[in-house]
Amino acid sequence: MKTVDATDRSAALTVTEVRLTPILIADPPLLNTQGVHQPYTPRLIIEVVTADGTTGVGETYGDTRYLDLAAPLAKALPGRPVSDLNGLFTLAEQVCGDPAEVSDSVDVGGLRGVQTADKLRLSVISGFEVACLDALGKALGLPVHALLGGKVRDHIDYSAYLFYRLAAHPQGQGEPDDWGAALDPEGVVAQARRFAETYGFGSFKLKGGVFPPEEEIAAVRALAEAFPGRPLRLDPNGAWSVPTSLHVARELADVLEYLEDPASSTDRMAEVAAGTEVPLATNMCVTTFPEIQEAFTRGAVQVVLSDHHYWGGLRNTQQLAAVCRTFGVGLSMHSNTHLGISLAAMTHVAATVPNLDYACDSHYPWQTEDVITERHVFEGGRLAVSDRPGLGVELDREVLAALHRRWLEDDGTMRDRDDAAAMRKADPRWQTPSVPRW
Amino acid sequence: MKTVDATDRSAALTVTEVRLTPILIADPPLLNTQGVHQPYTPRLIIEVVTADGTTGVGETYGDTRYLDLAAPLAKALPGRPVSDLNGLFTLAEQVCGDPAEVSDSVDVGGLRGVQTADKLRLSVISGFEVACLDALGKALGLPVHALLGGKVRDHIDYSAYLFYRLAAHPQGQGEPDDWGAALDPEGVVAQARRFAETYGFGSFKLKGGVFPPEEEIAAVRALAEAFPGRPLRLDPNGAWSVPTSLHVARELADVLEYLEDPASSTDRMAEVAAGTEVPLATNMCVTTFPEIQEAFTRGAVQVVLSDHHYWGGLRNTQQLAAVCRTFGVGLSMHSNTHLGISLAAMTHVAATVPNLDYACDSHYPWQTEDVITERHVFEGGRLAVSDRPGLGVELDREVLAALHRRWLEDDGTMRDRDDAAAMRKADPRWQTPSVPRW
Repeated sequence: MKTVDATDRSAALTVTEVRLTPILIADPPLLNTQGVHQPYTPRLIIEVVTADGTTGVGETYGDTRYLDLAAPLAKALPGRPVSDLNGLFTLAEQVCGDPAEVSDSVDVGGLRGVQTADKLRLSVISGFEVACLDALGKALGLPVHALLGGKVRDHIDYSAYLFYRLAAHPQGQGEPDDWGAALDPEGVVAQARRFAETYGFGSFKLKGGVFPPEEEIAAVRALAEAFPGRPLRLDPNGAWSVPTSLHVARELADVLEYLEDPASSTDRMAEVAAGTEVPLATNMCVTTFPEIQEAFTRGAVQVVLSDHHYWGGLRNTQQLAAVCRTFGVGLSMHSNTHLGISLAAMTHVAATVPNLDYACDSHYPWQTEDVITERHVFEGGRLAVSDRPGLGVELDREVLAALHRRWLEDDGTMRDRDDAAAMRKADPRWQTPSVPRW
Repeated sequence: MKTVDATDRSAALTVTEVRLTPILIADPPLLNTQGVHQPYTPRLIIEVVTADGTTGVGETYGDTRYLDLAAPLAKALPGRPVSDLNGLFTLAEQVCGDPAEVSDSVDVGGLRGVQTADKLRLSVISGFEVACLDALGKALGLPVHALLGGKVRDHIDYSAYLFYRLAAHPQGQGEPDDWGAALDPEGVVAQARRFAETYGFGSFKLKGGVFPPEEEIAAVRALAEAFPGRPLRLDPNGAWSVPTSLHVARELADVLEYLEDPASSTDRMAEVAAGTEVPLATNMCVTTFPEIQEAFTRGAVQVVLSDHHYWGGLRNTQQLAAVCRTFGVGLSMHSNTHLGISLAAMTHVAATVPNLDYACDSHYPWQTEDVITERHVFEGGRLAVSDRPGLGVELDREVLAALHRRWLEDDGTMRDRDDAAAMRKADPRWQTPSVPRW
């Protein structure tokens, strides 16, 4: 019997260095209920290096408060086994501290439910976990999905992520693009057609909560006419009251695959769920394990949109999937402004989850910049699951350096995402709307 | 950056052969509510060999109906990646079939709740999953716990597993031992003292359901006097009615760490739980994921005694732990008649679970025969978590061959565990008691 020597392997797989590179990436002027995406948004690229010279990459939020937590974790990691993923949670609790000042603050973009120190820490851990898995996979010659128990499918279906949007950022900032404005049903349908033609997406999600509900109902109706029979979703990020949510659900019951976070809070979601047959999905009401019990036992949500950045990594995402399976709750995946490292990570974990019930969201087509050498390519609305070692992506160090320079040279206004502040550049009187907005 | 070639690695980690070796192992005349353990009990040893010459070992039940499911799975595995653990479930469903004749039959020893084809299949998968993990770990130079995300503790606490027992098997069968009979409080305490002195166990579980409840209450009281302050548990395997369960809980509330499966069925357990502050533990009421939702939402159980043979392997055990954590239900581990391969597997997974709330059960001290070269040694009631590649155990092929010969030479009476039939050798009128017995 052939057995690799454990001492040699253990030495080779010890973390020797962690590099943190904050960057600013271009983001189009996409609208949501809080405001508009900034011209540039911060991300943090994490590199974990092991003694045998392997480098693994991970990616997470790059706002200052995430950087503040990532720095001590990066410092504490060298000397530990790169395979010690369970230990990341204990280590982060020990070294990252529990910054009281964030406990009551709002989250990135205000779209992630109530912010807590735990949520921040889990998002930071997720980037480290992915980097460790990438390094481990590369060192062992195994794809990340194999480290997660193996893929159960070869392709992952993604959904088109439609946004109301401006033609350009206010005050001429940011990178130009040729999408034009989408501010009415016609604009939304045109955007959907381009998504379908370019990437082959077969299902469509519209980010709502931007215009009065009747306008958004009209937009979804227009999508249903343009793409008959295709699964449609609408996500106002909790902007509606219970009666408004029930009204929209009634109006769109025949075309919606699910309604996403129509109202904020478990109480309101439970009330909406009790009054409609349309399944309710969430990435706001249930974003951590402690929020599950109440929401599941009250039937407040029928689909959890998992996000490994929220849940603390790929292995926690698998555990979330197990909880959903056990309680008969559907599972799909949420996507935020992120790059190809995180899309690769999503794709690997999605490949291992038996109960992936819906096409995953993907924000990726809106991201024209990336730090990997080969962009992911959607074909027929799907991504192939990579069998290359690790995540199957390589860092483009020149691009990384350029995007880091942009972060260094920023005057501070872009380093913390604030969609309401970005909106005020177009409308100085804009205030973060109170909830429910309609 | 150093990256192991994925094609080479993939070829090396392909399963080339699976060997199944049914054996009979000695088991002492331990009593339970169904009858008495047979002199010999069947186990199945599973070896998975990969293209690079690595052999991994696993262990599960060896009764005929398990062998019938293991054979097609063993035949289907060669050519697949040894890392494809998620795929084992789909494969088993495809090739093992769904034997209708077992659907309503009772389980091994009648002590595992209602038997179903799913449960049989999961038990078979568990042995294959452990063998694959052992092979993968050996091939990669990583301990199994590292393949499960890494250990969060270096030692696992085990509990003494006390049994009422006969001095010898009926009709002089089986292997003799020097434990003597334990049929009253004095005998139970003497057994506990020997366990404590030999292995250092600090907590004690008594298998009950054998004598009328007042006698078992007296035995637990005697243990409490002999070992003041030590955690005690009593497990009648669902033999009691709800009123009897509540009576025992009242009588022993001050000394029980938990009461294990006092009554059978979720309904009865929920009723008992509603009437006592003593936590209820189970390895009968909740033994598969589909049984969780009702039991947890009704508060029927406060501790799940996981068993990787029941739940479909080590990774499923981690997922069970996540579900328990999410719903505030405690977790510990059940142990049946098994050998050192399964004890190693239990120890590895136990090391990775953050919420291991109690000392695990261990039947191992009763097993005087083993197929591994070095027996596990409890020190201070604990086992050290191995950092050797794979499980950290090696097969003793001479012993394996001898125990397989015993199985081959058996006249068929021992190949399917039947504690009631074994009891009839002492008492020809013995019938499997109807539930509740008291």
